[in-house]
Amino acid sequence: MSKNSMLSARSIALEVSSKRMTAKQALQAGQTAIDAAESRLRVFSHLPKKLTAGKGPLSGVAVGIKDVFDTYDMPTGYGSKIYPLHKPVSDAALVSMLRRAGATIAGKTVTTEFAWFTPGATRNPHNPAFTPGGSSSGSAAGVAAGFFPAAIGTQTGGSIIRPAAFCGVSGYKPSFRLFPTVGLKHFSWSLDTIGFFAASAADIAYVAQACSGRDLAINESSRKAPNIGIYRSSIDDLISPDMEAALKSVAKLARSAGANVSTIRGPKAIEAARGAHAPIQGYEAPLSLGDEYARNPQKLSKKLRDYLKDCQSITPDDYDNARRTANRARKACHGLFDKCDVLLLPSAPGTAPRTLKSTGNSIFNQLWTLMGLPCVNICVGRDENNLPIGLQVIAPFGKDKQALQAAHWLEMMLANAES
Amino acid sequence: MSKNSMLSARSIALEVSSKRMTAKQALQAGQTAIDAAESRLRVFSHLPKKLTAGKGPLSGVAVGIKDVFDTYDMPTGYGSKIYPLHKPVSDAALVSMLRRAGATIAGKTVTTEFAWFTPGATRNPHNPAFTPGGSSSGSAAGVAAGFFPAAIGTQTGGSIIRPAAFCGVSGYKPSFRLFPTVGLKHFSWSLDTIGFFAASAADIAYVAQACSGRDLAINESSRKAPNIGIYRSSIDDLISPDMEAALKSVAKLARSAGANVSTIRGPKAIEAARGAHAPIQGYEAPLSLGDEYARNPQKLSKKLRDYLKDCQSITPDDYDNARRTANRARKACHGLFDKCDVLLLPSAPGTAPRTLKSTGNSIFNQLWTLMGLPCVNICVGRDENNLPIGLQVIAPFGKDKQALQAAHWLEMMLANAES
Repeated sequence: MSKNSMLSARSIALEVSSKRMTAKQALQAGQTAIDAAESRLRVFSHLPKKLTAGKGPLSGVAVGIKDVFDTYDMPTGYGSKIYPLHKPVSDAALVSMLRRAGATIAGKTVTTEFAWFTPGATRNPHNPAFTPGGSSSGSAAGVAAGFFPAAIGTQTGGSIIRPAAFCGVSGYKPSFRLFPTVGLKHFSWSLDTIGFFAASAADIAYVAQACSGRDLAINESSRKAPNIGIYRSSIDDLISPDMEAALKSVAKLARSAGANVSTIRGPKAIEAARGAHAPIQGYEAPLSLGDEYARNPQKLSKKLRDYLKDCQSITPDDYDNARRTANRARKACHGLFDKCDVLLLPSAPGTAPRTLKSTGNSIFNQLWTLMGLPCVNICVGRDENNLPIGLQVIAPFGKDKQALQAAHWLEMMLANAES
Repeated sequence: MSKNSMLSARSIALEVSSKRMTAKQALQAGQTAIDAAESRLRVFSHLPKKLTAGKGPLSGVAVGIKDVFDTYDMPTGYGSKIYPLHKPVSDAALVSMLRRAGATIAGKTVTTEFAWFTPGATRNPHNPAFTPGGSSSGSAAGVAAGFFPAAIGTQTGGSIIRPAAFCGVSGYKPSFRLFPTVGLKHFSWSLDTIGFFAASAADIAYVAQACSGRDLAINESSRKAPNIGIYRSSIDDLISPDMEAALKSVAKLARSAGANVSTIRGPKAIEAARGAHAPIQGYEAPLSLGDEYARNPQKLSKKLRDYLKDCQSITPDDYDNARRTANRARKACHGLFDKCDVLLLPSAPGTAPRTLKSTGNSIFNQLWTLMGLPCVNICVGRDENNLPIGLQVIAPFGKDKQALQAAHWLEMMLANAES
């Protein structure tokens, strides 16, 4: 699985719009890879028999849809045994936005159960003995395997950034509520954030702008190096040696390429919010899945059933306290960017773990989901097993373009360093 | 239609828990009124053949569910011609919470089309030539008519407080996101707020606490008079003479009963946010209903179709600017309560208009929905047509109990003044 096996959404869109390729031909781009590897990688929960091209800036671009988003024309199972044949009456808002921009739905991609931790069938394209990460497992793996040039997913803990890192693709978790979650099966409404996967930050920015009309596309002509703050915190003892070496190496290369790189120690008010993620998610999940827990407990995985049961001990006061802690931390986040444009830190403790029973640890993501800041995963290298190493670029709230632009600069800088 | 025709949720729950009445008997309480008046009032979009009692603090309490909330066992049409036979696969979170507390679903109640402005069939129980208000038309009218002791609805502009005022029932729009909207058909996700209707503030507080576990129930032993700020602003020239007289009369009575009553002039930073509601709703609605607009435009009312089309000219920048204006105003809201516990102001410009083609004006509600503050409508009198006059009590964000308690104090004070 090399970088070159990935499809570029932006290049495909350009080929189609300049009529060097028909949209129909473009949609065939992933077919060979799917035919060769789907039975092994299990990216799709539903693969349509035929893809029909749309019209617009995403004409010819096939987009994998994590199976927690409603689609009117494809079964939507939410990764649960409760809904094997469920067909929603309407598209989720984001699916509708993608179709309107001319994108074609590549299929529904495997999610963990209700986008929580119980893994689905997807394997890591770089080595099938390793997890692809979760919960957006199929979306990340499908982009990595060249099945489709772009995909959407959701992050409640670390479900965009972590699978992007483990699969070696670019992943973008936008500022909270920048993109609609209407028509998404919610797990924790204060945290659930939609996001995108593609071969590069520039590809992601193109797709996100095309479907939303937001000014997100990368400025290709800018060579301006970002001011980077390496975020250091109390959980850094969890960082693997490979990851730590990669972080240092990228910082050094960035400095050589003209970037200002400083170290930022996580302030107390922000670090205090690490403990707020669990009670917020834990209070909301049993309410979001109240119907499933009440009527179909036996069809939930034991792990999820136990979690939902245990979480019922979280009181409204616990929840309100956690929300207050999170709000204080959000205010403190402004100060993080006094001296830098973006933060840079590991997307996960290390590379993908060798297991299919877990999707890995989201501890490097939860805080940033809770803060609502835009995060972009970039692939910065490989470990000894040839598994991708991912770092995340984080910008201030609402400065999504800044995060994408800095991620693009780093991707270009690393590509130049390699060559 | 007298005040006495309404059913008290709290009294019913008490009768059942103390075994003076069975839950089954309690559920029959609204049946005579329904049989006598449903064909005239058109409260229900779906009326189940049989009601089954649950167990818990709401055992025997029938709750009307606005037909924008998903219910697994009843058709859910969202007030739209697109979904005449739609049966969701699961309950909305709030429906599930109510059932878990022992409540029985009284039926699905009429909503305007997608909870926007195109009216449904419901009439005002006080006079069928007048609108019941909207969009939670059936929920408010059903409580007023004694069909059920409690109901739930949603407010995006003024869809809880306005129909509560027009129908003469107590209505509660909680702090934004205090109760989950999971399983609600969204119109504008930054504004859509769930809420409750019942015969009194104490009844509402009982139901809201029973289903959420939040400390909201009225302290009956407290006789402490609230500090009341009469909120005056630039739109007060829209207030009808009847409404203005009622506001002055209530202020005078409250003062006599020991309340401190002052006047608060709407600060500039808050008043500036009045213009932010329209672009926020207008940007989000076409995304929320993107699927319906794309695939079933001919099944939308012309009014809604035109609105969704026109709104597509609202840019992400317009939207972001409006969100920033709203955020500044939210911060300024803290200062409103420096010298008072609650604000008091009209729930609508006047009483229900004599029309069935409109649900009235939400101008006195939009700002407070956008601010996310808890609002409670109380019925303070009648106009010359015997139509109810409603005022709203507003408390600081998260101080929902304070709003309910002050509303209760005013309701008790007015009942004493009448007798």
